[in-house]
Amino acid sequence: MRIVLVHGSWHTGELWAPVADHLKRAGHEVHTPTVAGHGKGADKRVNHAQCTQSIVDHLVQRDLKDVVLLGHSYGGTIISKVVEAVPERVRRLVYWNAFVLNDGESLDDNVPPHFRALFAQLSAASADGSVMMPFPIWREAFINDGDLATAQRTYEMLSPEPYQPFVDKLDLKKFHGLQVPRSFINCTEDIALPPGAEWGWHPRMSSRLGLYRLVQIAGSHEVMFTAPERLAGAIVDAGRD
Amino acid sequence: MRIVLVHGSWHTGELWAPVADHLKRAGHEVHTPTVAGHGKGADKRVNHAQCTQSIVDHLVQRDLKDVVLLGHSYGGTIISKVVEAVPERVRRLVYWNAFVLNDGESLDDNVPPHFRALFAQLSAASADGSVMMPFPIWREAFINDGDLATAQRTYEMLSPEPYQPFVDKLDLKKFHGLQVPRSFINCTEDIALPPGAEWGWHPRMSSRLGLYRLVQIAGSHEVMFTAPERLAGAIVDAGRD
Amino acid sequence: MRIVLVHGSWHTGELWAPVADHLKRAGHEVHTPTVAGHGKGADKRVNHAQCTQSIVDHLVQRDLKDVVLLGHSYGGTIISKVVEAVPERVRRLVYWNAFVLNDGESLDDNVPPHFRALFAQLSAASADGSVMMPFPIWREAFINDGDLATAQRTYEMLSPEPYQPFVDKLDLKKFHGLQVPRSFINCTEDIALPPGAEWGWHPRMSSRLGLYRLVQIAGSHEVMFTAPERLAGAIVDAGRD
Repeated sequence: MRIVLVHGSWHTGELWAPVADHLKRAGHEVHTPTVAGHGKGADKRVNHAQCTQSIVDHLVQRDLKDVVLLGHSYGGTIISKVVEAVPERVRRLVYWNAFVLNDGESLDDNVPPHFRALFAQLSAASADGSVMMPFPIWREAFINDGDLATAQRTYEMLSPEPYQPFVDKLDLKKFHGLQVPRSFINCTEDIALPPGAEWGWHPRMSSRLGLYRLVQIAGSHEVMFTAPERLAGAIVDAGRD
Repeated sequence: MRIVLVHGSWHTGELWAPVADHLKRAGHEVHTPTVAGHGKGADKRVNHAQCTQSIVDHLVQRDLKDVVLLGHSYGGTIISKVVEAVPERVRRLVYWNAFVLNDGESLDDNVPPHFRALFAQLSAASADGSVMMPFPIWREAFINDGDLATAQRTYEMLSPEPYQPFVDKLDLKKFHGLQVPRSFINCTEDIALPPGAEWGWHPRMSSRLGLYRLVQIAGSHEVMFTAPERLAGAIVDAGRD
Repeated sequence: MRIVLVHGSWHTGELWAPVADHLKRAGHEVHTPTVAGHGKGADKRVNHAQCTQSIVDHLVQRDLKDVVLLGHSYGGTIISKVVEAVPERVRRLVYWNAFVLNDGESLDDNVPPHFRALFAQLSAASADGSVMMPFPIWREAFINDGDLATAQRTYEMLSPEPYQPFVDKLDLKKFHGLQVPRSFINCTEDIALPPGAEWGWHPRMSSRLGLYRLVQIAGSHEVMFTAPERLAGAIVDAGRD
């Protein structure tokens, strides 16, 4: 498979390395672009359209076709717009505990009020309008399946998240009419969003995909760090025809 | 244990072979009758009562007693009526991602509107009023844990499903008063019904059993093909006293 | 870690032995006090405050500090009150399929009506106002992942449960204002409470903890008997910093 992995908030493409290594060893071609505005030192003043364009550019400049396009978390909002731009390049979409937005919604519309308030407050308090992840939330609710050392080591690799893409309302009419096959990977211990019907990832997000394939594994929102081989296996099961 | 496995829609008794082999090797007696109207070449013009009678006949003609009676999916509607007819022969009921109907309901009453519409449309379009499973649904939502070759190979073994038993309303007053012990096996990746409180298998179906035993395993609606040994283990855990 | 395990209804501290052995072998210090009014021969005429006090006394008399304080099931109502009394001794709270009560509620307020009725009826019929666990419920809904011999052997170790602590309304204002870190262990086959949004353990109970860490394992409400090593591993993952 030719797999393009689109990271989530606070991440960059480099952080996929452990997962990408397992996939490459299994014979797959893996691309891990960094979304515009992400990473240490990047200009955080980007909007959602610019984030999307940076991934479209990656696909077009390398002329990537037959792509299994995976989005993690916030990355789900990106791949939904990328496939609108270049549907002919995408063989299958894979959402890994990712946002699948309804037409006209923002990511912010899909998180609980206490997260919305926290993001707005952190953004307002930052010099460049970005949002940094507080460590206690990272440790307890994002990487709950890791030990403290892993939580600390990986936290050092994170970078502030641009805020504007969280609140941009997305036109997704074309996306919801596309027939590209799609899969959803759900980590059963992911509590980055509160579990349950109202705010949980699955089936709230997955059910918006219409006919989709479900793959589930044990793990937290950050299983890419705590069990990268397990996630690589799930990506293969989700991405194959 | 003496186990009678009652298959679901589009299946026949023969398709249990991999599961039955594991159970027999573990020392159990296994029966895999085919429900009336099921299989290639069978007359599809049957109703639910005839389907039930064919399984009752199997038990009575072989004088089977102390039976662990398992129903898969649609097969759940059958075993609920079979046990009404011959409760003295049944030691325990096991529902594996199966329909547990309320009194007066049909299977059709328990599936989402888009499935009801699809079944009605496929039945109307067929020569004998039967419903064939579309391959994309099979591949993504029924056997989501298998590879494409397994999905294709098993699809070839399916046959059109009689439609009348889907819409027959069942009198289940006696069933809901019986005290026969019962278990529910839930496959955690089964999306043949949309996951969630409104349409999901568990706990929507299981909770209708009153006091019941839950056994859960990883797998899709068709784990009998993708991991037959795992399912055989679950059947033993669900069926034992 | 220094771990204090607070048992649930019908149990005593001794019943933790298989789990405690695994934890000790992994280098942890383990305490397994018995809650007042619990055990064969104990005076069942206790209220919730007396139950709480017995565990506070255990911590204070041994001068235990930096404690990972775990409550199982009913034990969750105890540790929430214990930490109010001695917050400086508690490093982290761990709820294992345990009740997390809202301020002013009783355990009884948090179980389905048919359980409330059963408890009241069994208590009224007993000589000392206690509630014994009926074997069929134990076998099917509490230890559903064990075989019959295990269900019978462990049932012999149970003892009648004091009823008053089930119905005492608890003032938990202080608890809900505390910042002590907390974790929730959820066994995915636990049907001691009916699964689902209305009555299930998770996320109904876990979500009341605010920011918490989730650890999930396969197993029933009584996995301490059926897979003690698995539970010990989950306790370590839930209890570590």
